[in-house]
Order: sequence, then C-alpha cells, then structure tokens
Amino acid sequence: MIPRMISLAAVEEWCDGEVRPVSDYLVSEEPLEIRVGDTPLSVTLRTPGHDLELAAGFLFTEGLIGSMREVASLEHASDDAQPGANCVRVRLASGVTPDLEGTRRNFLAVSSCGLCGKASIEALRVRGLVPPNPEFRVEPEMLYGMPDQLRAAQAIFGRTGGLHAAGLFSRDGRLLASREDVGRHNAVDKVVGWGLLNQRLPFRDCVLMVSGRGGFEIVQKALVAGIPVVASVSAPSDMAVNLAREFGLTLIGFLRGRRFVAYSGGRRLQSVREDTNARRIA
Amino acid sequence: MIPRMISLAAVEEWCDGEVRPVSDYLVSEEPLEIRVGDTPLSVTLRTPGHDLELAAGFLFTEGLIGSMREVASLEHASDDAQPGANCVRVRLASGVTPDLEGTRRNFLAVSSCGLCGKASIEALRVRGLVPPNPEFRVEPEMLYGMPDQLRAAQAIFGRTGGLHAAGLFSRDGRLLASREDVGRHNAVDKVVGWGLLNQRLPFRDCVLMVSGRGGFEIVQKALVAGIPVVASVSAPSDMAVNLAREFGLTLIGFLRGRRFVAYSGGRRLQSVREDTNARRIA
Repeated sequence: MIPRMISLAAVEEWCDGEVRPVSDYLVSEEPLEIRVGDTPLSVTLRTPGHDLELAAGFLFTEGLIGSMREVASLEHASDDAQPGANCVRVRLASGVTPDLEGTRRNFLAVSSCGLCGKASIEALRVRGLVPPNPEFRVEPEMLYGMPDQLRAAQAIFGRTGGLHAAGLFSRDGRLLASREDVGRHNAVDKVVGWGLLNQRLPFRDCVLMVSGRGGFEIVQKALVAGIPVVASVSAPSDMAVNLAREFGLTLIGFLRGRRFVAYSGGRRLQSVREDTNARRIA
Repeated sequence: MIPRMISLAAVEEWCDGEVRPVSDYLVSEEPLEIRVGDTPLSVTLRTPGHDLELAAGFLFTEGLIGSMREVASLEHASDDAQPGANCVRVRLASGVTPDLEGTRRNFLAVSSCGLCGKASIEALRVRGLVPPNPEFRVEPEMLYGMPDQLRAAQAIFGRTGGLHAAGLFSRDGRLLASREDVGRHNAVDKVVGWGLLNQRLPFRDCVLMVSGRGGFEIVQKALVAGIPVVASVSAPSDMAVNLAREFGLTLIGFLRGRRFVAYSGGRRLQSVREDTNARRIA
C-alpha cells in the first residue's frame, strides 16, 4: 500500500480581491495510534507513511525501548477496519516491561511541583543518556550545503508547502535519510526509526538537520539516537541550548547561506583559521 | 513576578568559516504542569508568561471545561519550590467532574483501531461543537494587513526568531490580543484563555491569525472558541481543511501580500466583484 501523503482539493485563490477557483495539493494529516500489545500508548497526528519507523523511533526516543532487541514484532494492527491505516502495534520481547503510563509526564516531571528545565535535563541524565561522540568533527562548508539538499529531498513539501523535514547527513555531506511530516517531532522520530529498523544506530558520525526550530524535544531525541550535531535554519530555545551544553551536543541555528550560529559544542566545528593553521603545521 | 521570556547567551557566530563570539537572545522554553485539584493532567513545554491563560485555554479547547463557571479557582500552585513558576492548579466548581484520563486519546480515538480523520471529526460533533457565526463577513483588504500587525506585536520574536504567535483580530482589523509561545498550540490556547478570563468568549466576530501552519488542532481550538475565520501564512493539512469544511469555518492559507488561498468557507469573504455589484444594486 502506498500511503496517501497528499491529496488534491478544489480551493479559491484570492488575488487583490479577485477570486478564482484552483486546484491545490494538500498534505495529509491523520491520527496514528501506537499500541503496546493491546494497550493504547499514544495517539499522534502525523502524515501517513513510514508509520513503522515513526512508531519505532517514538518508542526509542521516549525511552520505552532501548533497542529493537526488545521488540518481538512491529506491524500495522491487523484488526484495523482500514487495513494498515492508522494503528501500529508493537509486541515486546518476553521479559521487557516498560512503564507505559505517563511516558511524557514521567520524562518531564520529577517531583511534586518542582518542575523546571533543570529538573527535566536531570531526568534525562537519570535515564542514562550520555554525551554523543566527542571525536566527531565537521566542516562549515559541509553544513552550508545541507538546507538545499534537504529541501531538494522534500518530495512533498514542494507541492504543499505544509511539511516539516528531518535529514540525516554523513560527515562528508551525503544525505543518508530524510523524512517529512506535519509534525517536527514525527519527522525526527521517523529518521531515528529508520536507523533502528536498519541497524544504523547510534548515529555517532552524523549531523541531523531539521526544517523547524531546534527545541528541547528535538535535542533530546537526537541525544537518545547518539547524534553529535543538530542544525536548523531557525532559533533554538534556551532549554534546548542548556540541554545541548549539558551533554556536549553541537547545536547550530540560523543556518542560512554561509552563516550560522553555534549555540553549543563549537569545538566540533573546523574553522577556516584552524584549518589554515593545521595546513601550516602539516 | 515578570516571567522570564527571554535570556541572553554567549554564542559563536560563524560567517564563511570565520568564528566570533557574540551575545544572542534566546526564547525561554520550560515545562508547565497543569493540575486539576491534586491530579496532574498534562505537562507542556511552553514559553513562560500568561500561564493562567494557557491553562484556562487548554482546559477549554480540549473540552475539559465548558466555561469559567465550572472553575472555582485557577492559580499558580502555592507549594511550588519556585513560587509561581511552572505549575498551575485549577480547582473545579463542586459538581463538575470531567473525564481527566486520556484527554487527548478520548478526543481523537473513537473505537478499536478504526482511527481516522473522519472519526476524529465525528468525535468533535459528538462533543457538541457547532458551526461558527454564519453571518460574519470580512473584507480581503482587512486580511492583508494582519501578518504585519501580528509581526509588529511580537515583542519577543524580533529578538529571538524562535516564537510562534497567535493574534485575534476584530472585523475591522484591530488586533484584540496576541500571544507568543514556542508551541503553536500554546499561543492559540493563550489567546483563547485571554478571552475566557475576560469574558470575551465566544469570539463570534473575530479572525484568528496564526504564524505557523493551519493544522487540525488549530482549527479544532478555533471552533471550540467560536471563531469563524482562521488565517495563516502557511499551508493547512487535508484534515484541517476537512474539519473546517465540515463545520463551515473559513480557513485561509498562504496569506502573503495581497494574495491568499481560501480552503473553506469563502462565502464569508467579500470579493471586489461582489462589492461592485452590491454598490451598483445600492
């Protein structure tokens, strides 16, 4: 089954007060339910397609599974009225018993009402998150090329203008995987899920580029997947920057043209000056 | 207490491979827990500020309360380690007993795995949602001015580039309220919460402008608040369009310059042609 990722709609285009009927492509948005066994775990609004990756990536980045070894099966629920449409069921390997209640709350909340960014970061440390590959280095020249490459790979965005994208790049700038979704987090979960299902995790030597803002949850998901560098064309939040600094992840924002801002982990970036020095020494 | 909505950070600016240290404003992102009595209901990552509006708007647009008459008190939780920081407690009026479990799941899911966009829309009908004001009319000329007005009102965005905004406009183009947040939904919930706390609901004669995409949940929240017209500079999803059409909400996308696309409810828009005809008749 090819998922229905876009649809055509009759709409009205208004220019300067004049109206004319046109056809327009719309990006699809539908709920996906993820079930662990027969227990509903979450419902997310997503763009259909790569649903198994999305489910696997979600379970992994939210800390419910540690690897695919903990998964006995992962499939579209067979009792679905529309086969394979909007429900994915994961069956866990015997002996695997994650805490299914309040995934999100357990992750963010710590105790009573003492909820804050610092506590949320501490909770991730308790969860066993470790700093990503400290040896990884990347050249700015490689980063400059990522936004155009990601945009070119966005098969759907060009038609609808309504999608976020996440792209995983190798150190030398090859696009390894890209996924699109109405939700920023979903696009990242799909990329991570792609890695899980293809035994490519952790992404020790990769750069993650996202089309939207670099928020806390994007950085968190990247850390869980072992990604050392995250870049976006937009601004990160303070909580995202704090998390990146705490774990030594390189966080890049406002990547536009030949300019960007490094909010954390600048040591992974090779400056022209350093480069020149290196050449002189060599 | 003035909420800390932005913070200053020392970062590195990279231009063409050359790096220099600069100071940059970051938008704040922190978790907010909403409690009903002593029961934690949800944790959302939001930009601090207007927290009571956010909590009220969230409870209302998600269907947990029908009006502020159902609320006995709404305040920052007093047992918070950081007073008034990241927890809002709502105490419901006696006799009010909403279903606190699985708000989101109950709202989206319907039965077994037969989850789809159509079922989600049907669930809203069951919840008692009705079409917004059918008599409301708006002129394209008024719409053209909204994006600039909303941008001008974004006190924080200009400094950080990291925030979504929602603005509520009167029929004649006055900006009645605008709110910013790292989350698109939160910005809308804050505007709706502003209306709730100031007895301005339903917004029968208003236009809602959002800075991001017009997704399903934005349209849903607008419908709950009785808003007849929703506009964005970006694309809506098919599910958002279907919901808007089902309930007769006017949904506008790609509002840029003197052009936009009407995805639904174009009858509320006054075209130049109609206008001329009307004048001829008059």
